[in-house]
Amino acid sequence: MKIALCQINYHIGNFEHNVAQIIMYLNKARDNGADLAVFAELAISGYPPRDFLDFNDFINRCNRAVELIAAECKGIAAIVGAPVYNNTGKGKRLFNAALFLHDGKVEHVEHKALLPNYDIFDEYRYFEPGRDFHVIDYKQERIALTICEDLWNVGTDPLYTFSPMEKLELQCPTLMINIAASPFNASQSAARHAVLKENVALFKLPLLYVNHVGAQTELLFDGGSSVLAADGSLVAELAYFEEDFLLVDSESLKCGGFSGNSTDSSRIQLIHDALVMGIRNYFAKLGFQKAVLGLSGGIDSAVVLVLAARALGPENVWGVLLPSRFSTGHSVSDAIELSENLGTRHDVISIEEPFSAIQNTLAPLFENLPFGLAEENMQARARAVILMALSNKFGHILLNTSNKSEAAVGYGTLYGDMCGGLSVIGDVYKTDVFALAHYINKDRVVIPENIISKPPSAELRPDQKDSDSLPEYDILDEVLFHYIEEFKGPDEIVAMGFDKALVSRILRLVNLNEYKRHQTPPILRVSAKAFGMGRRMPIVAKYLG
Amino acid sequence: MKIALCQINYHIGNFEHNVAQIIMYLNKARDNGADLAVFAELAISGYPPRDFLDFNDFINRCNRAVELIAAECKGIAAIVGAPVYNNTGKGKRLFNAALFLHDGKVEHVEHKALLPNYDIFDEYRYFEPGRDFHVIDYKQERIALTICEDLWNVGTDPLYTFSPMEKLELQCPTLMINIAASPFNASQSAARHAVLKENVALFKLPLLYVNHVGAQTELLFDGGSSVLAADGSLVAELAYFEEDFLLVDSESLKCGGFSGNSTDSSRIQLIHDALVMGIRNYFAKLGFQKAVLGLSGGIDSAVVLVLAARALGPENVWGVLLPSRFSTGHSVSDAIELSENLGTRHDVISIEEPFSAIQNTLAPLFENLPFGLAEENMQARARAVILMALSNKFGHILLNTSNKSEAAVGYGTLYGDMCGGLSVIGDVYKTDVFALAHYINKDRVVIPENIISKPPSAELRPDQKDSDSLPEYDILDEVLFHYIEEFKGPDEIVAMGFDKALVSRILRLVNLNEYKRHQTPPILRVSAKAFGMGRRMPIVAKYLG
Repeated sequence: MKIALCQINYHIGNFEHNVAQIIMYLNKARDNGADLAVFAELAISGYPPRDFLDFNDFINRCNRAVELIAAECKGIAAIVGAPVYNNTGKGKRLFNAALFLHDGKVEHVEHKALLPNYDIFDEYRYFEPGRDFHVIDYKQERIALTICEDLWNVGTDPLYTFSPMEKLELQCPTLMINIAASPFNASQSAARHAVLKENVALFKLPLLYVNHVGAQTELLFDGGSSVLAADGSLVAELAYFEEDFLLVDSESLKCGGFSGNSTDSSRIQLIHDALVMGIRNYFAKLGFQKAVLGLSGGIDSAVVLVLAARALGPENVWGVLLPSRFSTGHSVSDAIELSENLGTRHDVISIEEPFSAIQNTLAPLFENLPFGLAEENMQARARAVILMALSNKFGHILLNTSNKSEAAVGYGTLYGDMCGGLSVIGDVYKTDVFALAHYINKDRVVIPENIISKPPSAELRPDQKDSDSLPEYDILDEVLFHYIEEFKGPDEIVAMGFDKALVSRILRLVNLNEYKRHQTPPILRVSAKAFGMGRRMPIVAKYLG
Repeated sequence: MKIALCQINYHIGNFEHNVAQIIMYLNKARDNGADLAVFAELAISGYPPRDFLDFNDFINRCNRAVELIAAECKGIAAIVGAPVYNNTGKGKRLFNAALFLHDGKVEHVEHKALLPNYDIFDEYRYFEPGRDFHVIDYKQERIALTICEDLWNVGTDPLYTFSPMEKLELQCPTLMINIAASPFNASQSAARHAVLKENVALFKLPLLYVNHVGAQTELLFDGGSSVLAADGSLVAELAYFEEDFLLVDSESLKCGGFSGNSTDSSRIQLIHDALVMGIRNYFAKLGFQKAVLGLSGGIDSAVVLVLAARALGPENVWGVLLPSRFSTGHSVSDAIELSENLGTRHDVISIEEPFSAIQNTLAPLFENLPFGLAEENMQARARAVILMALSNKFGHILLNTSNKSEAAVGYGTLYGDMCGGLSVIGDVYKTDVFALAHYINKDRVVIPENIISKPPSAELRPDQKDSDSLPEYDILDEVLFHYIEEFKGPDEIVAMGFDKALVSRILRLVNLNEYKRHQTPPILRVSAKAFGMGRRMPIVAKYLG
């Protein structure tokens, strides 16, 4: 049986777009002689639809979209993910379903049984778990159809009390198909391969896996849809970070002995490509073309400028230099050199006049209080006011340039440098920002060497260095990683060899600054634990704070 | 048997505080001759602990706190909520547990079976549902002990597939005890009474119900712990919005015929009291005393000023008037009159100089483009820069004064009037802001009549009125309510008699402005569907947008 894997960039709630794309790929599959076209989990609605699922109107639109697609399923079958009503009278109102469409109608429905509800996932918020499992007889195959997490209850510490494939196995399937919405992080591709292989090893069946591709605000879907033969060999892997299509003959997967190539991209390369896709899709799906950002002459804004230019085209990216009395000469010249290397527009706007005006205005209240944090923040906020004015006047989206290290410890000004429509590198630790800069420069110097080599500074007071306030980034990032990504407590981190007072100070800063992160833009997610929807912390609390 | 209901204001992660409070109430209960003291769900950690639960360090601290409390349980037993490890080897790593402490140790553990995972609740993110149920024999009672949601699977459309009390009933209990963390909204108290009564009617047993009180950032717990006799009569209800303690004799509850009084506060009075508690607890738990806010002369900032003065004392609240060339004379005089009525400090700081400086700075780029939205936003942002400078310099928390109607449709400036540490009335529709103002003025004029009667205006351009851009608030608020609180789609709302184009415009504005709400401060929650953690919407999407 010939099966088409269709890896598509969906748009949440954009039924017109999603249906059109699905039907286009369906026709392509039929034209290529496919018996079955497979689409991703919740392809109809886009993933994650979040609380749109609470609206009957939204579910009814999903139903109508399914009918449109089913009507096209003549001479070919399709598997497509959609939310459906739970009509059992008990439990939550919806199921997360995989629909088998054939002969113009929905012939079979399977419900997702294992509902991820950790990190960025909220599926138990909406869906009742499936409890009945039936293989699908179609042509010469008996298909065991599951949805994403249904295959993930493996390993030594299973999160769920059973696995749907154990039930389906009793019905003698000949083929596994899994439709997924599995977002990218820099270690996800390896984890995914391990889980797919483990399922093939357990059930001795070929496995077709179809994932989403494309960005949905902060969530980046890398694609990487895969075909595994019954012996566990990887027969084929679809593209990363772009739409793709593949036709396979299920008969050829029974014996194995293949070996397709998985991506051999490095971790930093994956992050780079994911971020470029994230920016590009954010703008395209919102209907915007142009970005503006502040260029400080530092490495963070330099890396964001490069990523934005690659995502949107240099003609669509505008870097604005906003020097103050504390900016060093090289900050301006380095940023201009970078901008010229890229061919992006740049302007220089001094913040001296607004900064002075704000100080004058406050003088009667501030009297003769010494220059301090308030004055530092004022500069960052004066920059934000100017950048947002440009955004409002000319229709550019402001890109945020904060990195994960400073977001973690609150080294940034709320309503100042923490502004923006999208945080590009808010899930990238400072040490990885350096690695990205080196990766960008691997073939030729794009980012001037001086931007990479000079000591990081906010330049908000004379001779300021980040290291005046923060530990060195290589130490800071390690401690942050153990705390944020690995959920280690202070004693555990100290036991790894870090200074006790330092660990205590860093963890305290992370927790105390939750209030700032609460008001930041969505952050493109490239790690297994990004700030934002996947990390939910109390603000008013006292744990380690 | 004498039982003490202990209704306490816990602090998330503040084990020292929580343990001290629990032991203090435990001693009070013992001194009053109680056999058992009952504390709330997750009393040990505070509720909701959110992703702190992912840290073993946090769970271990909970365990140590339980040990400290158990050690005090000599001559008295206690029921207390805490997270405990799941040692079954399958499923999620924790249970949400009710612990029965007696003779210096944990004698019995019940696990919550029904885990709310809607609106502001995320319990399935952390907890495995309980599956075993055992009554507790203690003195002359057989106690059926459940946790909050465990009693809520009632009514015609049950969310779960079974009810724990059905299992416990088979073991012939004599008394129900439910420990809860049930946050306030303006209709919650009635819903809670109905559910408690329905359980008593079903199981014919007395019911003791112990809730949290106090605010945890945006979540407001109203208390209202209750005692119901076996005939369903309300014997007693503890205080709303403050800590309380009550001793009851379980024997006296078997026959019934009592009738205690439930709160007869009006909806607006409840909202008023909830908001005052929300402000007070936010500051106290963060260790701050003083608030600053911008006073526009309009009704929103007037109501927030009154609530803040009542929460923190007038000596701790600072109103700052920030007039521009577009401010009307009465805006300043009305705000000063209000401030004088309250005895709060006020200052007048013109934003003309910073506004002009920003315009001058941008003139080379703006050239001769006409005055527009960018210039309006500039004024709101100039105000925010000044307010945040005062906050930074003097250690005041900035209070946000946006209401729910404008937050819904995006009628506000990001990084301008949308700034602040806490949004006080962001869950109060404009029509209810007026009702709050009338309630505040019920005995004497606190808010000058002119502030209430003049047409709402942002005063960002000459002769601006809210009604230039928005529908009248009585219509807008009704449409918003049907969409946000009732999940109605456009066709359903139009069928109620609203204009089709208007409904379409309003719903579109709500969805398009999700990006702004993503970056707003936490909002004190007084409705069943507030913006914030309980309403999770995609940003990049196209549904009704």
